Amino acid sequence: MYKKIYVLPLFLFLLVSCRNKTEDVPAVSTSNKTEAVEISGDPLPSWNDGKLKKDIIAYVDKVTKEGSPDFIPLESRIATFDNDGTLWAEKPYVQELFAFYRVKKMVEAKPELAKVQPFKAVVEKDKEFFAKGGDKALIELVAATHTGMTEDQFESSLKEFFTGATYPGKNVPLKQIRYQPQLELLNYLRANGFKTFIVTGGTIELVRAISEDFYGIPKEQVVGTSFKYKFDDATRNIIREPALDLLNDKEGKPVGIQLHIGQRPVFACGNEGGAGDIAMLKYSQGNKYPSFQMLVNHNDSIREFSYQEKDNASLNAAAKNNWHVINMKEDWKKVFADK
Amino acid sequence: MYKKIYVLPLFLFLLVSCRNKTEDVPAVSTSNKTEAVEISGDPLPSWNDGKLKKDIIAYVDKVTKEGSPDFIPLESRIATFDNDGTLWAEKPYVQELFAFYRVKKMVEAKPELAKVQPFKAVVEKDKEFFAKGGDKALIELVAATHTGMTEDQFESSLKEFFTGATYPGKNVPLKQIRYQPQLELLNYLRANGFKTFIVTGGTIELVRAISEDFYGIPKEQVVGTSFKYKFDDATRNIIREPALDLLNDKEGKPVGIQLHIGQRPVFACGNEGGAGDIAMLKYSQGNKYPSFQMLVNHNDSIREFSYQEKDNASLNAAAKNNWHVINMKEDWKKVFADK
Repeated sequence: MYKKIYVLPLFLFLLVSCRNKTEDVPAVSTSNKTEAVEISGDPLPSWNDGKLKKDIIAYVDKVTKEGSPDFIPLESRIATFDNDGTLWAEKPYVQELFAFYRVKKMVEAKPELAKVQPFKAVVEKDKEFFAKGGDKALIELVAATHTGMTEDQFESSLKEFFTGATYPGKNVPLKQIRYQPQLELLNYLRANGFKTFIVTGGTIELVRAISEDFYGIPKEQVVGTSFKYKFDDATRNIIREPALDLLNDKEGKPVGIQLHIGQRPVFACGNEGGAGDIAMLKYSQGNKYPSFQMLVNHNDSIREFSYQEKDNASLNAAAKNNWHVINMKEDWKKVFADK
Repeated sequence: MYKKIYVLPLFLFLLVSCRNKTEDVPAVSTSNKTEAVEISGDPLPSWNDGKLKKDIIAYVDKVTKEGSPDFIPLESRIATFDNDGTLWAEKPYVQELFAFYRVKKMVEAKPELAKVQPFKAVVEKDKEFFAKGGDKALIELVAATHTGMTEDQFESSLKEFFTGATYPGKNVPLKQIRYQPQLELLNYLRANGFKTFIVTGGTIELVRAISEDFYGIPKEQVVGTSFKYKFDDATRNIIREPALDLLNDKEGKPVGIQLHIGQRPVFACGNEGGAGDIAMLKYSQGNKYPSFQMLVNHNDSIREFSYQEKDNASLNAAAKNNWHVINMKEDWKKVFADK
C-alpha cells in the first residue's frame, strides 16, 4: 500500500553531520529536573541580562495579562522548540549515534553482517560508500536498523541506547548536552500556562524516548519525522515499515505542527545551521495572536561549537522578519549546567 | 508528490449513514462544562448502579493507588474515546451534515454549481448518483468541499457550521447530542490523572473545532482522519490537499494512536455499529499495564437509537476478549443531559 520510499533526505541529513567532533563540551549535571515548577526571582538565571532576555520576559508578561489587548487564551499558548541545536547539541546528531549503535548491535548478533553492505560501510566508517551507493544503500540501512520491527522492540532498543551512550569525545551522558538556558525557558513558559512541544527533524520515537525525562515534555507533545506504521492484528502490535510518512524538517515542520497540534504556535524557537526551522518560524509569525520567534546562533566555539550556514539563510530570514536571535556567546551565561 | 487518492472509504462511510433519522433525540442542556473538576460524592451520577459502574470505579481506584502492583504512572494514564456513537450520537454523522452544509454554501455563492455534478446530486439528494458514479464523483465532491483551501478558511467554515447547525429532525444544537454519562466519565478519568484523547474516524479538524468546548479536550489531543497538508511559503499557510493521509478507522486507529500519542492507551472506549473500534480495543489490551476496554451497545430505541452490526463483529469481539459493554438501555440513567 505504501510505495513511496523517501528516506534519502533523512540519511543525507544524518550523514552530513560529522563535523567539529573534536571540540569540547563541558560536562554537565544530570540532576536538573524539568517539570513545571513555580518560579520565584529571576526565571532565566542562565541568561545574561540584556535586550533578548528583557524581550522574552516582556512578551510573556504582555500575553498572559488578562484584559490586555495582547492576551492569549490558555488553549492557544502553544510553544514549539526544535531539538537538535536548539535544546541540545547537534555535533554529531544523537540520531546518527543511534543509527550506528543499531548497526553495531545487529553485527554483534549476526557477525556475518559485517561483511555485507551497507553494514560493512558503517563498521569500516566508509562514508564514500554512502556517497556513491545512493538511495539503494541508504534505504537498505534504514530498513535494517530503524524499521521492520515492532514499536515495543524499537522502544527497548532506544532505552538501552540512552542508558549507555556517551557523547563522542566528551565522555558525558547524552543528558548532559542539553542547553541549561533552554531548560529554564521551557520551565518559565510552562509556569506561564504555555504548552511546550518539541518539533524535530529527528525521528519521533527517538525524541519521545527521552522527552519527559530530559525536558519535562510528554510523548504526545513531540512532533517528528515518522515512518509508516501498520497494525498487525494477529500480534496486536504496531509494525514500523521502511517508508517515511513525514519528513518533519523545513516545510515539513508546519505540516507536522498542523497534523499533531492543530494550531499555529505563538512561540517558536529553532536554530541556524541547517535552515530547518525557517518555515516553522514563518508559520508561527502568521498567528493571529502576538507571537515570538527566536533562533539559536551557534557562535560560541569555546563553550559549544561555531558553525554557520554557507548561505546564511536562517540569520538572513531572522533579520528580514524581525526574529530574535540568541547569540550563544553573548546571551547565555552558561551553556550547559554545572557539574 | 502525493499521488495516492484514497477518499472512497471515507465517503462511503459518510453516505452509508442516513438511517433512523426519524427517531427522537431528547433536547439536552448546553450548559454542562466538561473541564477537569474535583469530584465529590458519586462521580458517575448518570450511570445506573450496577456491575459496569462498579467495575469502572474499581479499575480507576486500583491503578491510581500508589504502591499497588497495579499502579500506572501518570504519564501512561492514556484514555482514548471514539467520538461518533461513543461520545455523541451518530445518526446521522455530524461529518455528513458538514459535507452537505459545505455544498449548500458553495452553491449559494455560485448557483451554477447546482447544475454541475456532483453538487447537483447532493442538492437533489440523489444518492443513486454516488452509488453509480464511483470514485470519480466522490473524489470530486471531497476535493471541492473539504480541501483545496487554507486551514484558516476551513476552520472558519467549521465555526460557522457549528454555530448554526441543528441535529436533523430534532431541532437541537449539536452540543445537545453528547452523551451525559460519557461527559461524567471523561471528567472522572481526568480527575484521576488520566489524559483523555478522542480517536475518531471523522476528520481531525471537524472534531478539533469543538473538542475543547464540547468535551474539555484540547485540539492536540484529537486523533482523526487527516488529509495531506502542504506549507505554502508565499502566504505562510497550510493548504489541505485532496488526498487522504490517514483513514483513522478500524486498523487505522492504532496507527493514529502511535503517530499522535506514542503509547498504547490503558483505557479505551468505542462503540458497536461500524466495527470501527475493535482494533483500538485490541491494541489497548496489549498494554503492559492493567487496561480497560469498553464498547457502547446501541440498544436503546426509546432514548437514543437501536442498531447492530449485521455480523455482530464488535459485540462478538467484546465477548471473546472480555471487554466491558455499555448496554445503554440498562447502564445509563440518562442518555442526554436534562434541559
